[in-house]
Amino acid sequence: MPAHPIIALDAMGGDSGPSVVVAGAALAKQRYPDLRVRFYGREDAIRAELAKAPALAGDSAIVHTDVQVAATDKPSQAIRRSRDSSMGLAIQAVKSGEAHAAVSAGNTGAMMAMAKLMLRTMEGIDRPALAALLPTLGENDLVMLDLGANTECDTENLIQFAVMGAAYARTVLGVSKPRVKLLNIGTEELKGTDELKDAAAALREADYLSMEFTGFTEGDKLSSGEADVIVTDGFSGNIALKTAEGTARFVTDLLRRAFTSSMRSKAGFLLSRPALHMLKVHLDPNNHNGAVFLGLNGLVVKSHGGADAKGVANAISVAYKMVRADITRRIAEDLENFRAHHPEAGQA
Amino acid sequence: MPAHPIIALDAMGGDSGPSVVVAGAALAKQRYPDLRVRFYGREDAIRAELAKAPALAGDSAIVHTDVQVAATDKPSQAIRRSRDSSMGLAIQAVKSGEAHAAVSAGNTGAMMAMAKLMLRTMEGIDRPALAALLPTLGENDLVMLDLGANTECDTENLIQFAVMGAAYARTVLGVSKPRVKLLNIGTEELKGTDELKDAAAALREADYLSMEFTGFTEGDKLSSGEADVIVTDGFSGNIALKTAEGTARFVTDLLRRAFTSSMRSKAGFLLSRPALHMLKVHLDPNNHNGAVFLGLNGLVVKSHGGADAKGVANAISVAYKMVRADITRRIAEDLENFRAHHPEAGQA
Repeated sequence: MPAHPIIALDAMGGDSGPSVVVAGAALAKQRYPDLRVRFYGREDAIRAELAKAPALAGDSAIVHTDVQVAATDKPSQAIRRSRDSSMGLAIQAVKSGEAHAAVSAGNTGAMMAMAKLMLRTMEGIDRPALAALLPTLGENDLVMLDLGANTECDTENLIQFAVMGAAYARTVLGVSKPRVKLLNIGTEELKGTDELKDAAAALREADYLSMEFTGFTEGDKLSSGEADVIVTDGFSGNIALKTAEGTARFVTDLLRRAFTSSMRSKAGFLLSRPALHMLKVHLDPNNHNGAVFLGLNGLVVKSHGGADAKGVANAISVAYKMVRADITRRIAEDLENFRAHHPEAGQA
Repeated sequence: MPAHPIIALDAMGGDSGPSVVVAGAALAKQRYPDLRVRFYGREDAIRAELAKAPALAGDSAIVHTDVQVAATDKPSQAIRRSRDSSMGLAIQAVKSGEAHAAVSAGNTGAMMAMAKLMLRTMEGIDRPALAALLPTLGENDLVMLDLGANTECDTENLIQFAVMGAAYARTVLGVSKPRVKLLNIGTEELKGTDELKDAAAALREADYLSMEFTGFTEGDKLSSGEADVIVTDGFSGNIALKTAEGTARFVTDLLRRAFTSSMRSKAGFLLSRPALHMLKVHLDPNNHNGAVFLGLNGLVVKSHGGADAKGVANAISVAYKMVRADITRRIAEDLENFRAHHPEAGQA
């Protein structure tokens, strides 16, 4: 475990670039005084922002580059300039050991492709997955993966995602034996695709893993608190995550309309404002920012493109906690354990 | 168009059986005085409920059966007793012409299998799809399909769903040229599975259809009002629908907690109650009840198992409106039109 977790930050990623990234890093530094950061991007812009954050400035370094991955770049285009771009240099810093984790709010597809190319997948992992924390009505947040890195997944991918998701939940949620479920269109054993049924059968028998596999769950149970980890292919995971975000916004929009529909309800709104503020805080995506690419030989965190400084600070916190918890080693141990019981797996 | 739309009702389906089904039919009869209904199920139980609804009793018939499809029946089991069950007899009545549409709140898988077996798919349709109306922030509800009838779909299925969904939207939403989108994990042309990309390419060129195909949409735009029809495979559709339901419930639960967190917010709640009631009405699944199996030679509507009398009345209203609008013929015409432009399609 390093004395000072060093996080490599792509200062140019996201909708607002250096202003939000540096402000977010300054907030994270307040939370974790031993944090060190390395910024990658346009030096003059970063330096101007750092002037406003003296506590951070002393514990940070800047690596200049004019090259940026655009939001519209295809992964193949991004890879061609990977060595020079702010995103590519941040990931490269993890590979070279100059940083313990990288955080970027840039183009997800480009990030995935570069991270895979530079860091390579861990032994026993065919494809990395994108995992994030979602709010629930239970005591803990929920780990959900894959959220869009892999459009189609086979049985082995789903099993590997379950192992990685459980290791991640043990680390960030502090649950010793996470309850793991597979997302499906019904809870009966016969429901869903062959890939799901086969993955469920394998996980049901894998009682030597540090998780409790409890079968299938459905879309309406995501936030119920019944699971610590929900595993799905990237297509369904992306649909579910975005539908949840859109629906939460839809309901709060309806609520706003309801509150402005009469003088009486406006008065009610004013009285209820502190309570409604709690709701807003709970649902604010910035409070759940920081999706993690799991399964790579190195830590890479995706921040939301529209995140504000608090959101960036949360993404950096996710990276910081994973470095502190040595998550890459933990996942490797779990995979090793799974392979020892399944000598036929991982040969694909 | 029939003088009196006759709806066949499975009186035994759903969580509450005849009490809710008969009460729902009585409500629907108030809305549509020319409605006729035929009940299938236990005669004594139905007759007891009908005694409370004299306006309906005179315009209804009862066909007795003791046999019921159980919620836990596999489709194959259900089919074996299809001729005798309340669900099977209701669907059979559509086939024989005794009724113009059937409504059941029973086991969805069994309903799909029976309806396909008895009514057969329309010429040019490989698989029927389950379509429902969802609330949006726009002026109209949204038609979404498939919602779980087909776990995996190929390009042809998706195109057929688009044609059927557009015909349905023209009928129930009254939109002359519905805006149709495919659900995907991004809006760029390169995103998603090959099936989605190929379906999009075909629909983009099909400008002779009575729809405006406007590309891909994502989960967070479902309720934005940007589309009249959203097409997806049954797996993703089911995940999206249930995630939306679960998230709406999650947010309203948080809201309830927020409102009971202090005396001040409780007072705010009391003042805001009429406005919050509007929100509740808007989100109540009973107000959007009635999913339709499209693509069969006959109309079958699925009511939610937990629907109340108002929910059942809404499902019956959906069936009534489709009979009045002659939807089966309209879909057949659109498919004919599509086949005329694509002689290679529908040969599969």
